[in-house]
Order: sequence, then C-alpha cells, then structure tokens
Amino acid sequence: MLDWHGSGMSVMEMSHRGPEFMGILAEAEADLRELMAIPSGYRVLFMQGGAIGENAIVPMNLIGRTGRADYVVTGTWSEKSAKEAKNYGQVCVAASGEAGAFRAIPPRSEWRLDPQAAYVHICSNETIGGVEFHWTPDTGDVPLVADMSSNILSRPIDVSRYGLIYAGAQKNMGPSGVTVVIVREDLLGHALPITPAAFNYQVQAQNDSMYNTPPTYAIYIAGLVFKHVKSLGGLATMEEHNRAKARLLYDFLDGSRFFRNEVAPADRSLMNVPFHLRDASLDKAFLDGARQRGMVQLKGHRIVGGMRASIYNAMPIEGVRALVAYLREFEAAHG
Amino acid sequence: MLDWHGSGMSVMEMSHRGPEFMGILAEAEADLRELMAIPSGYRVLFMQGGAIGENAIVPMNLIGRTGRADYVVTGTWSEKSAKEAKNYGQVCVAASGEAGAFRAIPPRSEWRLDPQAAYVHICSNETIGGVEFHWTPDTGDVPLVADMSSNILSRPIDVSRYGLIYAGAQKNMGPSGVTVVIVREDLLGHALPITPAAFNYQVQAQNDSMYNTPPTYAIYIAGLVFKHVKSLGGLATMEEHNRAKARLLYDFLDGSRFFRNEVAPADRSLMNVPFHLRDASLDKAFLDGARQRGMVQLKGHRIVGGMRASIYNAMPIEGVRALVAYLREFEAAHG
Repeated sequence: MLDWHGSGMSVMEMSHRGPEFMGILAEAEADLRELMAIPSGYRVLFMQGGAIGENAIVPMNLIGRTGRADYVVTGTWSEKSAKEAKNYGQVCVAASGEAGAFRAIPPRSEWRLDPQAAYVHICSNETIGGVEFHWTPDTGDVPLVADMSSNILSRPIDVSRYGLIYAGAQKNMGPSGVTVVIVREDLLGHALPITPAAFNYQVQAQNDSMYNTPPTYAIYIAGLVFKHVKSLGGLATMEEHNRAKARLLYDFLDGSRFFRNEVAPADRSLMNVPFHLRDASLDKAFLDGARQRGMVQLKGHRIVGGMRASIYNAMPIEGVRALVAYLREFEAAHG
Repeated sequence: MLDWHGSGMSVMEMSHRGPEFMGILAEAEADLRELMAIPSGYRVLFMQGGAIGENAIVPMNLIGRTGRADYVVTGTWSEKSAKEAKNYGQVCVAASGEAGAFRAIPPRSEWRLDPQAAYVHICSNETIGGVEFHWTPDTGDVPLVADMSSNILSRPIDVSRYGLIYAGAQKNMGPSGVTVVIVREDLLGHALPITPAAFNYQVQAQNDSMYNTPPTYAIYIAGLVFKHVKSLGGLATMEEHNRAKARLLYDFLDGSRFFRNEVAPADRSLMNVPFHLRDASLDKAFLDGARQRGMVQLKGHRIVGGMRASIYNAMPIEGVRALVAYLREFEAAHG
C-alpha cells in the first residue's frame, strides 16, 4: 500500500479521473442504488465533511428556496443540526422530544409544520438517546430530509418518501471520510451564493462527485461493504438480523429488575441500546468486568450516562448473546 | 480489512475517540511538525474537503478581520481560489501572470498589495502550468496564505513566514480525503458566522481536529508517509532528490529541438513539467509509445494541451530516466 518507489498502482494512488477509479465509483453507486432501491430522479453523491458538515451543507443548498426550514428535534444530533441551520435561514423547531427527556419520538399529530418550509429535517436514529424512527413521516409537499448516518443500510426504506438523505459512512457503510447524499433532482439548484463549490450539490451532481478530488479509498471500501451487504441478502436480511439482535437485548432488559432501558418501546433504536444499572455505584465494576470479557465501548455518552450497546450491522448476534450472558451473570452476582 | 463479523479492530473500525486512534493522530501531527519544523504558535489541523474546499474555507475563516483579501494569480488553481473567495468578501488580484500566459511568477516588485488585506493568498505550485514559487514573498504584516497541495513535503520551507498553509494530501502526503491546515494561532477566531462548524479552524483547533469524525484511515496512511519521509532523511533529502529528477528532465528539454518547456527557468516547477512536441500532430504517436512503455498519465491538461510529467516525491529518479530515454528515442525516430 505504500509502494513509494514502485510502479504498480493501488487504489490509493490511482488518478481519480482514470478509468480504474471511475469504474469503482460507478460500481459503488450502482450497488448502493440496487441495495436501497433508489428511484431514478435521485442523484447519489459521494462527498466529504460527514454528517456534521452536512448540518451546514444541507441548509446552504436547500433553505434558499423559501428561506425557512422545519426541524424535528429528537435528541443530540437533530438538536445540533437545527442549531447549525440557523446560520442560513429561519429555522423552526416543529416538534421536540425534549420535554420527555428525548425518550420518545413526538407523534406526527403534534408536529407544527410550516407549509412554506423549504424542507423538514429529521434524524432517523439518535445514537445517544437510542430513539429511532420506525415510520416515515408524511410531510405533504414539503421535502423530508433525513440524517441517516447511524441507521442507513440497517433495513429497507422507501427512498421516494424523502427529498434528501445523508449519511456519514462510518457506522454502517465503511470508513470515516466519505458522506453519501441521496437527493431528489428537483431540489438541486437552490444553493445560497455562500455555498462552497465543493459542497454544492448541483456542482457535485454535474461533476459526478468529482468537482474536487473525492476520498477515493474510502469510496472503494464503502463499495466493498455495499457488495458484502448484497451478498448477505440485502437490506431485508439486514433488518431481520438487526431485529433479532435488538430483541434479544431489549427482552432481557425489560425482564430485568437490575438493568433498565427507558425509551418508549415503539421508538427504541435497533442500532443503539442505552441502559442503566439501577445502582449506578456498580457502573465501574460493570465496565471493568465487560472489558475483561473483551467488550469495550459500553460506557454511555456523558450526556445520558449509564451504558450503551451499539449494535450496528457489523455486530454479530453472537456479540449480543455474549453481552446478554454477561448482563445476566452480573445481575445474579450483584442483584 | 472487512472483517465484518470479526471482533478484532483495524484502524478503519476504531472509535476515533479511542486511545488507539488518538495516538495515531498525535503521532502524525508530531511527525509532520518535526518534518516541517513547524514552530510553536501554529496549530496543525486534519480536515476534510481538499484544497478546493479550502478555497471557501480559508476566506470564511480569515477574511472577516478586515473584509478584504489579496490574491496572486499564477495559474488555474490560484485563479479558482480567487474566484471562490469573492463570495465571502472583497477580493483583489494583487498580481497576475495571465498576460504572460502564466509562464512566470510575477516578481514581488510588481505586486500591488493592500496593507488592509486580511491575508495574501498564493498557490506555491501550479500543477497545470508548471510554475512554482522558489522564494517566499515578503508580505509585511499581512499574513501570507499558501495552497501547498502539490509541493508540500517536497523541500524544506520556513513555516514562520506564513500565516496559513493548506494542502490536500493526495500529491505528496497520502490518500485523498484528508486536508492538512497549518495555521498561526492569532488568525483563529475571526470566522464569518456562516462558517460551518466542521470547517471552522478555531472549533477544530479547540477539538484537536475531532469536532466531527476525522477521516481516520486517510490520517493513518498520511502518518505512515510522514514516517517514511523522515526515514529517507527528511525534507532536505526530498529536495535533493526532487532537484535531481527535475534537472534531468529540464536539461533534456532545453537541449532538444523537438520538445520544449516554455516556463521561465527561475519559476519552473520541480513537481510538474509540462512540455510540447514542436509538431503536435505527433502527440498521439508519442502517447501511444509512452503507454507501451508503462508510462501513463503523460497527457497535458486540456487547458494547456501538450504533455505533462508529474514527478512528485513518490516518483523515483529511475522513472524520470526512463522518460528521458523515451523522449530521446522518440526524437531520434521522428525529429
């Protein structure tokens, strides 16, 4: 891979305009289109900056049509998105789960949507609070924009219900450094003049994601992940797999008097399962024991405390079984 | 590397906040600081978006101090930078090589600098026209900003003469997808309100380049390149190596009556050597012959036509010798 003085080419040193990389990019896009059943009339862009970059890039590109946008706040990530969007237009929080400590998705009937909004923004899965949209909100003629960074490719979705979907790759698609944007063509062309050309969807669409040098190696790896998911049976299989994993863990937590998950059952995330020990003074002992069993990164985000199990596509059911076995054992010893 | 169902960790799946990746990032920064002798008082940021992204990110972050900036235009890249900067403030072209078809760097004595400019921007090496700054312009109290994407790490420079240096990684530092920004601390904190948080230098400096998930694998590879360059002897050795390669090629071109390079000798790039056949009708035969010898990507940029040899750090002198041998042979057959 470093072949400094060699003459062979690895993906990493290919010209991004050469036929080899152009083929890799086209194949990655075709595989993603097939996996997600992306309809014609949508463009697939491979960009840089991650979902946090998109917090600015989305309004820069879309808010200009009417100058206003609605945000549904269901946790840390969507709150951050709404806050950043305020730099580019009038942002309204159409619904928020804050009053309920973000333990549930506000029902659609409570949303106060502005028919003049350029778009409605949601985060389809909040990794910290562990709430996930298991339904697609109807926003009428106003395009729905979703940050799917943490649950894209975890189950089939109906892309035609969305105006724009964006996702940083690093949860379910591959390495960090590439951001996938799926955008309905009629939403292109409304970018604010201050939009950097490299982050202008229309410019990137016209240049097949090559207006600037794309993150070639990250795209190559994401392409391999798309092929792998296809070979496993596609998104229906991923959903089955992810539901089985989540059920195992939630069923145990609900039956336990020692551990608890406080998210409304209908809104529980299949990807991120936060849980607390009833006796927080045992947290350290719990984490130490987990580490001894090779289970790392179980500590919850500092905002919510407690524990969190992230069970993305790549986590095998055996990993969840091992976690549940440890939870049971720890409860028996300390409960 | 794909280890989908495994439990081991590769760099690509590490948490960017875990001690393993934090160590990789810190070591990459330390090695780059050592290689370039970056003084204290400068921050090193690893960002996304490439140099084309920086065309907007630089003015967003720096122009706000006075609302004005000077640009020195020496070819395609600096022209593009100046054009994009106009979205964020008053941009003045302080000097341009356009009248001379960008075959020379305008001498410092001809620059009309604005003492109230927030910065002066140059591109230290133009890859298409093949002109390079072999001197560091004195801009007085106005910070000098340089796009060094195509010649960073090719020779020692005095970082203290610059306010800000930026470079996409893909020429001399590693894979595309990571951008290095070296910025003097006093220039932080003047970002326009419309600056995306992910591209705000101060936000990234305060968060050690981790405000959003950094392109971890690209940083890891860049770090390996830094170690490799150190092991070869550092930038003084790279300069010697690069000068020897360039001399070989320019000496041949200057002695030829069949090929020509039209760049002013004092401003010729050590990285990119454009050249023309006197008889352009032989271009195709020349490229075909080159391809048969395994020499690809010799076609010049469509803007200038002709041929171009890119001889970045990674090109061995043997590669240049092979090219010169082919040039000599082709001239003998067709000259």
